[in-house]
Amino acid sequence: MTTENIIAERRSAKRTESLQAVNPTTKTQLPDLFPVATEEEIDASVAAAHKAWKTYKQTTGKEKARFLRTIAKEIEQLGDVLINRAMAESGLPEGRIIGERGRTCNQLRLFADLVEEGSWVDATIDEAMPDRQPLARADIRKMLVALGPVAVFTASNFPLAFSTAGGDTASALAAGCTVVVKAHPSHLGTNALVATAITRATEQCNLPEGVFSTLVGGIETGQQLVKHPLIKAVGFTGSFRGGKALFDLVNSRPEPIPVYAEMGSNNPIFILQEKLKTEQEDLATMIAGSVNLGAGQFCTNPGLLVLQKSDTTTAFLQALKDAFATLQSATMLNEGIFESYQKGKAACIAAEGVSLVFSGENPSSDWKGEPGFATVSGKRFLQNNHLQEEIFGPFTLAVLCEDAIEVNAIAQHLQGQLTATIMGTTEELANSTALIELLSQKAGRVIFNGVPTGVEVCPAMHHGGPFPASSNALFTSVGTDAIKRFVRPVAFQDMPEMLLPKELKTENSLDIWRTVNGEKRRG
Amino acid sequence: MTTENIIAERRSAKRTESLQAVNPTTKTQLPDLFPVATEEEIDASVAAAHKAWKTYKQTTGKEKARFLRTIAKEIEQLGDVLINRAMAESGLPEGRIIGERGRTCNQLRLFADLVEEGSWVDATIDEAMPDRQPLARADIRKMLVALGPVAVFTASNFPLAFSTAGGDTASALAAGCTVVVKAHPSHLGTNALVATAITRATEQCNLPEGVFSTLVGGIETGQQLVKHPLIKAVGFTGSFRGGKALFDLVNSRPEPIPVYAEMGSNNPIFILQEKLKTEQEDLATMIAGSVNLGAGQFCTNPGLLVLQKSDTTTAFLQALKDAFATLQSATMLNEGIFESYQKGKAACIAAEGVSLVFSGENPSSDWKGEPGFATVSGKRFLQNNHLQEEIFGPFTLAVLCEDAIEVNAIAQHLQGQLTATIMGTTEELANSTALIELLSQKAGRVIFNGVPTGVEVCPAMHHGGPFPASSNALFTSVGTDAIKRFVRPVAFQDMPEMLLPKELKTENSLDIWRTVNGEKRRG
Repeated sequence: MTTENIIAERRSAKRTESLQAVNPTTKTQLPDLFPVATEEEIDASVAAAHKAWKTYKQTTGKEKARFLRTIAKEIEQLGDVLINRAMAESGLPEGRIIGERGRTCNQLRLFADLVEEGSWVDATIDEAMPDRQPLARADIRKMLVALGPVAVFTASNFPLAFSTAGGDTASALAAGCTVVVKAHPSHLGTNALVATAITRATEQCNLPEGVFSTLVGGIETGQQLVKHPLIKAVGFTGSFRGGKALFDLVNSRPEPIPVYAEMGSNNPIFILQEKLKTEQEDLATMIAGSVNLGAGQFCTNPGLLVLQKSDTTTAFLQALKDAFATLQSATMLNEGIFESYQKGKAACIAAEGVSLVFSGENPSSDWKGEPGFATVSGKRFLQNNHLQEEIFGPFTLAVLCEDAIEVNAIAQHLQGQLTATIMGTTEELANSTALIELLSQKAGRVIFNGVPTGVEVCPAMHHGGPFPASSNALFTSVGTDAIKRFVRPVAFQDMPEMLLPKELKTENSLDIWRTVNGEKRRG
Repeated sequence: MTTENIIAERRSAKRTESLQAVNPTTKTQLPDLFPVATEEEIDASVAAAHKAWKTYKQTTGKEKARFLRTIAKEIEQLGDVLINRAMAESGLPEGRIIGERGRTCNQLRLFADLVEEGSWVDATIDEAMPDRQPLARADIRKMLVALGPVAVFTASNFPLAFSTAGGDTASALAAGCTVVVKAHPSHLGTNALVATAITRATEQCNLPEGVFSTLVGGIETGQQLVKHPLIKAVGFTGSFRGGKALFDLVNSRPEPIPVYAEMGSNNPIFILQEKLKTEQEDLATMIAGSVNLGAGQFCTNPGLLVLQKSDTTTAFLQALKDAFATLQSATMLNEGIFESYQKGKAACIAAEGVSLVFSGENPSSDWKGEPGFATVSGKRFLQNNHLQEEIFGPFTLAVLCEDAIEVNAIAQHLQGQLTATIMGTTEELANSTALIELLSQKAGRVIFNGVPTGVEVCPAMHHGGPFPASSNALFTSVGTDAIKRFVRPVAFQDMPEMLLPKELKTENSLDIWRTVNGEKRRG
């Protein structure tokens, strides 16, 4: 494993100042020293990414597919070294890390399939009408092209799947963009290993050096990176505070560029009474499990439950308390996240009108996220916007409403969400169209009778939502449509046939879906 | 014609302060007084737009199509009153205004066809896989839904087609958004007439009041409008200064929202030597005509010509001078634009190394835009970024380069553009792939052997480009894809079949194109 920055296939360590990863389970620093990138190294990585982009953007779908598949293969070939390092740096158990590696590699292969098939470029052709009156129409043909070098900020909670070769990198490379990843300070070794796999793939596929680089550093390194004029888009997954600061910084550039920050969410679950009556214990078990999954460290973790006050609800809260009591707490990702969780939970419990129902006891000697839940009245919730602040960890707040009108008022009051869930019987759902409509106005994904944790990587997935869930609700950071973040349309007017890219030539030799004179066609 | 603000079908005038339009041809104020909207009126218009959106967003494609077509019909039925008022407020000739009305109504009907057909919602369905190992897959279905109330800022140079019922309004209404238009202070009467037509259409189609409102005011009114928390997107066509200020303001909102500002461009034309040799006079005539079209007041007006120094070029410049000498100057849109043009032209001519070749003489008594052109060396152009500032009017700067390398350096040096044009023989173009690639990196539309003025409204059009040409290069403000600016995807997970919107039900009763389990399908 290298500990150096990887800049266009070359190792580079110009600074003596370095970072070290920490094993959250043992609370000890891992031995390797990772030198922080200098400004010169940041500049070199972006300059190399810009140079490489000019060639790489013209790479065929087949070549990009081969590259993405080779990255997946190289990641798999890292074997246990990667699994062990990711476990040591995240505190996550082996099964989860192995599963996440699978997800990461599947994701790379999904984007490989997408670009190999090729229709994603949205080729649109309007043929000339030389005889049109009063004016002739020119021949106009449009397709999506890669934006340029993309800066990727990796997530704390997915050392592989939202990280060095995660969704942002995979979709940017699939789009024809080159990538500079700022390593997460918690996952320095994991990043280095995966970066080596990508570099090997770059070499095997004879792609220009500079297609991928990775830099070690903290906030300042990230700021320098996104301010670089040759960076043309930013992908980020993390906290609201971090994402919003990045959003503001990027928009203050002389040339603003797109910044796709996925900043987390409360992911409310609305539970209707009839459903609760018949499935009280099952729901309690399912929800407690979702709250505590991965120590609650998912952006889709359900941080709010919304219910009407009733005997049924009282019984459910007891069942939920019982379910929470059976939960196992797990080590959180790092000290900062553990401390934020403690503070966020304490602030919520201290808020007026909030009653703690359950909290695991935390032995102060470790960084385990003890599951907990509390209740608050709908009225109080509506009065206190702080109760909408995400608490990243295994905690949820049950909002108890007087009636269905107050339930809808809560839905109306919510800020933007990645997900919103509704649980009800078929009849109840049929009678809740106003609530469902409200939830669809607030969230990127509306879930019926399931839990929000678990984000499928597929064409129909939307992982994004109105601000503050994400900085741009029009795009998803998970699923094949994530590629659309890193491309823009270019129209060619009266371009000679021989110069047209294959996607736009009159003969559709790539056999992709295209829109020709307003009609979708293939072949 | 009403002179009042139109708020959710009702006339409203709470302030005594008012604006008056000016006839630029006669330089006299038109008699009607248009009261400026108060904060209360701004709030009322947005509140009504928000309320109406909740219903209107669920309107079917057929109903929206009927609405858009009714608006077109009502605009046509305004007859000569509209034509005369638009001429009086813009100084544009009758033929142009009649043509622009046609374009406006065709555009409304094009969006009507689009939403009636219905495939634009990008319905994507991934069916459940209950038996998948290791985890079952849920049923996930996604489509595009309307963002909410949209604020539209109208353009000075298109009193109809980029105005009250122009591309932004038409695409927002087609998307299912409601609209609040800030009237352009130059086109107060034109705005009022078209607003009346829209209001009549709203009534005829039994749509909720609040689908459309229009407010009179200046910069402050616009600022108040976009700061309103219920406004969810902004469309703007105008100057870089205005657009950038709006961009910054909107991004400083507690909840940032998308702002689509089309801010103009230099629209360089690169002319290759062989082409110039054989078609010198034709090119001179064509380019002079494009520079002077509509007194040069188009965002696609060619403000830069890039050529290699040669005898051919010298002869072409003489031909261009001759062509300019035959041009008729026309009244500019308003005093501010006329003065900006004078200042911009003077500053350019005064810049070191710039030589004026031709300038019509301007009788100081009117606001006519006298055509002109100047030359500068490639070297000087590369040194002086001010020479890339758009001069809105019939002026162009010919950049004379030492060789093909300097030509490419100019292309590389250019800021983002709406369009870039290359003129060359078939052989020259075949040998210019590096230059063509550079132009496609800088512009939203690359034109071959034509002029950039004239923007076709069609599916393949892209009218937008890298900053500063527009604030968001990923979207177009002209053509059917303009609708994508005002929608976001929402995914529904395990939604009961009976609750699914028609677009996502298993039976495709709307017969739209959908992506089902990764395959494009219809019927």
